Amino acid sequence: MKLLEEYIEKKGKLIGGNIVKVDCFLNHQVDPYLMHEMGKEIKRLYEGEEITKVLTIESSGIAIAIMAAMELNVPMVFAKKNATKNISGDVYNTTITSFTHGRDYDVRVAKEFLSKDDKILIIDDFLANGAALNGLISLVDQSGAKLVGCAIAIEKGFQDGGKKLREQGYRIESLAIIDGFTENGIIFR
Amino acid sequence: MKLLEEYIEKKGKLIGGNIVKVDCFLNHQVDPYLMHEMGKEIKRLYEGEEITKVLTIESSGIAIAIMAAMELNVPMVFAKKNATKNISGDVYNTTITSFTHGRDYDVRVAKEFLSKDDKILIIDDFLANGAALNGLISLVDQSGAKLVGCAIAIEKGFQDGGKKLREQGYRIESLAIIDGFTENGIIFR
Repeated sequence: MKLLEEYIEKKGKLIGGNIVKVDCFLNHQVDPYLMHEMGKEIKRLYEGEEITKVLTIESSGIAIAIMAAMELNVPMVFAKKNATKNISGDVYNTTITSFTHGRDYDVRVAKEFLSKDDKILIIDDFLANGAALNGLISLVDQSGAKLVGCAIAIEKGFQDGGKKLREQGYRIESLAIIDGFTENGIIFR
Repeated sequence: MKLLEEYIEKKGKLIGGNIVKVDCFLNHQVDPYLMHEMGKEIKRLYEGEEITKVLTIESSGIAIAIMAAMELNVPMVFAKKNATKNISGDVYNTTITSFTHGRDYDVRVAKEFLSKDDKILIIDDFLANGAALNGLISLVDQSGAKLVGCAIAIEKGFQDGGKKLREQGYRIESLAIIDGFTENGIIFR
């Protein structure tokens, strides 16, 4: 998606040679125009597919997911990372190992919000080694729902999460794939 | 806001006499149509005020805040609750005591995203005792930005957070205020 690539090139900050910080428009400060355009693009990519619900994980996936859900006219569900009194009763649960945060955390969705009749589109902001996406896929599998596919804002193509998931037959649509870095810039696929 | 009151009455679940669960449309499963309408209503309420940025706190405030930010055509910033490698360097920081989660947590915003030239609208999903809102106000104060006001989805009018903040002179606009419960329903202000 050209617009997202332009944002990454113009507003992202290259750090240390192989990290690009996008916290001025994606995951701390968030640009609502870009989120809306990404939501429309995700709808376009999955045109013709039946989707009944969008699933993401708190927190950085929520802004993209709610825009895609608005365009698709379906509810959005976000999986919760932290124990909270607000989720009671039966939940689907899995453990994700986060390399960003350097720890394991439990992720949960109340069973009432994912059912075997659902057709799920998973949305997240980043795909690197695939840990978060595999966790979300596990929640969908536990519910018996059909996984239609995944939509990602930025895939780090130089890590193998996307490759492995596609080899397993999952449909993964990344709006921008970063394959590497040069001295002055970013190599998009 | 009539639409939100209808959602609360029709889809909320009364628990134990003084709690209404809204996790099927607001804070776990999220209804994008309602979020968008709330964003438009927040814009209408603050018509004529100069706003340069919307500030919320992860995670449940994000969906409302990004819709309001889209309508206002300004960036949205969400304060982070958990330590993460993604925020480095200088941050504004405060401690919030959560009664929902039964613990204290640190909340942070990178200094680069709040400046003394900003005119901030704070948005959150709930206002009860005001702990989260006071924390967000502290972050705005630390930055030297001007606080234009706050917009809340659901205020629990039977707790004193909203009353105290209004007495201190803050503009607090709640889209629905629950003053109490009867045996079969909710009393809205």
